[in-house]
Parts: sequence; structure tokens; C-alpha cells
Amino acid sequence: MSILALSGGVGGAKLALGLSRVLPQADLTIVANTGDDFEHLGLSISPDIDTLVYTLSGLANPELGWGRRDETWNFMETLTTLGGATWFRLGDRDLAMHVERTHRLRAGETLTEITDDVRRRLGIGPRILPMTDGRMRTRVHASTGWLDFQDYFVRRRCEPVVHELMFEGDAQPQPEFLALLADPALTAVVICPSNPFISVEPILSLPGVRDALHACRAPIVAVSPIIAGRAVKGPTAKMMTELGLDPSARAVAEWYGELLDAYIVDHADAADMDGLHPRITVTKTLMLTLEDREALARVVLDAAASVR
Amino acid sequence: MSILALSGGVGGAKLALGLSRVLPQADLTIVANTGDDFEHLGLSISPDIDTLVYTLSGLANPELGWGRRDETWNFMETLTTLGGATWFRLGDRDLAMHVERTHRLRAGETLTEITDDVRRRLGIGPRILPMTDGRMRTRVHASTGWLDFQDYFVRRRCEPVVHELMFEGDAQPQPEFLALLADPALTAVVICPSNPFISVEPILSLPGVRDALHACRAPIVAVSPIIAGRAVKGPTAKMMTELGLDPSARAVAEWYGELLDAYIVDHADAADMDGLHPRITVTKTLMLTLEDREALARVVLDAAASVR
Repeated sequence: MSILALSGGVGGAKLALGLSRVLPQADLTIVANTGDDFEHLGLSISPDIDTLVYTLSGLANPELGWGRRDETWNFMETLTTLGGATWFRLGDRDLAMHVERTHRLRAGETLTEITDDVRRRLGIGPRILPMTDGRMRTRVHASTGWLDFQDYFVRRRCEPVVHELMFEGDAQPQPEFLALLADPALTAVVICPSNPFISVEPILSLPGVRDALHACRAPIVAVSPIIAGRAVKGPTAKMMTELGLDPSARAVAEWYGELLDAYIVDHADAADMDGLHPRITVTKTLMLTLEDREALARVVLDAAASVR
Repeated sequence: MSILALSGGVGGAKLALGLSRVLPQADLTIVANTGDDFEHLGLSISPDIDTLVYTLSGLANPELGWGRRDETWNFMETLTTLGGATWFRLGDRDLAMHVERTHRLRAGETLTEITDDVRRRLGIGPRILPMTDGRMRTRVHASTGWLDFQDYFVRRRCEPVVHELMFEGDAQPQPEFLALLADPALTAVVICPSNPFISVEPILSLPGVRDALHACRAPIVAVSPIIAGRAVKGPTAKMMTELGLDPSARAVAEWYGELLDAYIVDHADAADMDGLHPRITVTKTLMLTLEDREALARVVLDAAASVR
């Protein structure tokens, strides 16, 4: 088997963890959104890669939903006394990732190389590929004007009304990502339950990716990030309303359109799927436990097999 | 009064603290060696400035003799798991200084501006001036070839035999430093008990500084960093032997030569001062307590007054 998962942060990482536990490690490749990446305090921060790395290595912070477990905050506390920017919180352990990554990027290593070295060191089996080694930055056209993504997402807590999104930069997709999509041995593409607009769309909008997905012979399966009109975490539902969409599992499927061969929705949304193009699978999509993640991963793989 | 102190790290910072406690805050300016500064993990580190800042703000780590008190090491521990360089230890709190400084330097602020902002925020009265806002790097010609200073000092623990020192770069002295030396209101210049070769010499070797000191009408008072043939901390004595000098308080005075008007030595070295050019004051120079630091500061100011 060869499974390619497209993922953003928290929700996507949960399913990626499930997939990593029900598949042989070498069979899974995860492509991470890097549209959220930014430079802060001179450090190169890749939030979705880090959430994937921490989740797959068992180091994720279960209380916060981001960052590392067993975290301490002495750097941040001291930075406050020095008048530094504190709106983006960096734990002492998490900081090691950002400092080391920034240092290696400046020394000429690619984000792909660094991420691959880190996941090996932390004992993660599946490959984690940045969607690109180039620069693409998600920007948010909000009621207050154009905002950098983390300004919108963290500093302003997703409060501004979103009119439009833009993916800035001329990044090319990571070559191995494109090669996998073109590989006849590819078994399935999984679009994880991440925000379609800010986690998945940056990946899809890279030059050639949409065409490669349409040309790809493997089935494409998405899991709805919306359950009964609400996102499990994050601004997906609010953002859909602001973008003039119905905040529903159905509207997500319609947004992905012809791309999808199969679509996984929660029991709560089963009644609203009539007449949709992809094959619908109804299951429990809320992932509270590790067992939930594994069970959903199996449903996803079965759905892919059933349309192949 | 207007007192200008030239200082390296630990020993110099102890006397600088003493001076800061016996003088009105506005009367003291400390010029810090930046020849030890280096870039590590992409961060701009200024060890002597930091030791001065931590010592004068009461934040210095009394157990380690460097870095911050109440320090934690989770960044460093995590960096190890990521394969990062760990020979130079950076505490979680200390790191805030390096990240913030690096960030501000890249944004175009000078080291002088950043240091001044930090000392104000930490409630330090006296000004702390970097010897230069430019780049001058101490390099060590050792038995193993030319080494960067921190490579010699920290990574190799001062173990290589030193043949020669070099101060690399075309840095100009900090303009306020030169202006103070030329100011007729200057009361004294204090050369703190720092390593003459690697803490004081970088300052003296900046273009124009030696001439400005010779032209300066204020008395120049040095405190010996050597007591009874030994340095209180660091490689001064070992380095003197390797450079073909006698590791003695006398040899330090001879090294400074005509520059000095007064010289403060410990009781242990009193018998060895015959025929030296500067006026000798004998006192207890070992600074174990805060009272020791204040007492030595008073002796230094008295010695300056007596030759004025």
C-alpha cells in the first residue's frame, strides 16, 4: 500500500496518527500544509509540521491542543521582562525545534531535509513532507484589511470577519509529493479533517497539484472537518459562514467538488448527503481517543478500497 | 563624578556591581568587552554584556558563575534529542536575551540601543556600553591552530596552549565611549580585574582607544586579576605562562605599562611591587561577598582620587 495524506494541524494530525498506527510505517506519507509558516522573533516556525511531529511522536500537549507536553514557559516569562513580543507563545522545549530549524535553514538545508531528520530522531515511522520547500504564505482579507495568517489566527484569535484568502508566493510543490501523486502504485489520497480553506487549499493551490490530483488514478477520500454544523476545533465553521457558505459537512464536500471519490461524514450529518458526487461513508468522526483515531483511519482505508 | 569602567565578564562584573553600589547611578558607565561575542545556533550571543547585565540586576546565577539564576534547561535537553549543538549551554531564561537581541539586531537596532533598553527594563542604573557596535572577534592561536574564542574558551575548556591572540575585524569604538574619554569631566577610568589579554586588550586595541587613554586627563586605575599567582576564575594565569609571562600581579602591571596611574593588588602580592610605575594600593582584592565588592570599589575610587 502507499497512502498519501494531506494534513493541516490538530484535526489532520489526529487522523494521521490513526493512519500511522493501522498501516505499515513505510506505507504512509503525510504532506503538511506550510501556508501557516511564519517568521517570529527571527525564528522560522512551521506550526502544522510541528503539530504533526509532536502528535506522531507522542510529544503533543494534550491540555493545550498545540505545542509539547511537559512544557515550561521560562523563556516566555523572561521575554516579557525584556519587552519582547509575547502574543505567540513559545514553550522552552518547543523553542528547541524552532531554533534548530531556523539555524539549519540558514545553513542551507531544506525544510524537507530538516523535517525528515527530526522525525527520524523522534522515532516517527511515516515520512512527513512539507507541501513545498519554497515560500507560500496564507493571507487573510478581513474586515480590518489584509492580515498575515498568524496575525489573524493567533494574535486576533480568528475574530476578524474573513472576506477572502490569498496564498502569496511562487512556491513549487515538494517534488516527492508530485512524484507520489504520479506513482501508479499510489493506493489512496486522504484529505484529513483539516480546515479546507486554510489547511488544505494552500496545498491544492500549489502549481500542478490540482491537475496531479485529477490525473491521479488512486481514489481521493476526504473526512469532513465539520460535525453537525460545527468544527471540532478552530474557525472552520465561522469562516465558512463569513465566506458565504453553509457551515456544513455537505458544503465542504461541495467545495472539494469533483476532486473527491469518497467522503466520510459523521452520523450527525448522514441525512444531508443526498445527491452528492462522492461515495459517502457514515461513521463516528469525532476523535477523542487513540482508538477513535485508529477506527476512523480504518474506515478511511476501507472507503478508499471500496471505490478503487 | 564620572567614572568609566572597562570590564570583561565575571571578575569585572563583580567590581562593576561594587562601583554601582557606592556611586550615584548616573556617575558610572561600564564599557563591556564584545570580543567574546559570537553567533551560535543563529543567535547573537554577547557573554560579557550578559554577565554584566545579570550581575548588576541581581539575576546572575551564583552557583554556575555564568547565566541566570532560577534557570531551567528544557530547551537544551530538547535540543539534544533533535541533534543540535550542545557544547554551549543556553538556559531557558538566558535564551530570551539571545533571541530578543538577535531579533532586534536583525531589525536594525544597534547593540548599544538594545543593551541600553535591556538594562533600563531590568532596573540597572549605570549605563552599559558595548565597546563597539561593529564586529571585532577575539581569535586564539593555539597549539591546534587558530580557534574562534568560544571554541577555545567553552568547547575546549581553555585546554589548548595559547601562542598568540588576534582581534579580527575593523570595528570602531562606540562613539560615546570615545566621547567620555575625551570629556574633561571624567573622574577616573577603572580597568576591572578581568583577563588583560582577552577581556581588556580587545577594548584597548580598538582604533583610537589607546591614544584616547593616554591623552585622557583622568587617572587610570587597574585592579589585578591575579592574586598570589592565580586567577580567581578563568584561564588568566595559565594563559600568561603560555604567553611567556610570569603569572603574577606584577606582570599584569608591566603588561599595562605606562597606561596605569594606579594599581590595586592583594596583600598577597604587596612584596612584589617594587619599582613599578603606577601608584600601588594594597588591599583585599578577592570579592566573595557584596561587602567585598563595595569595599574594593571604594578603594579603587580612593586610589584614583589620590593620584588626581
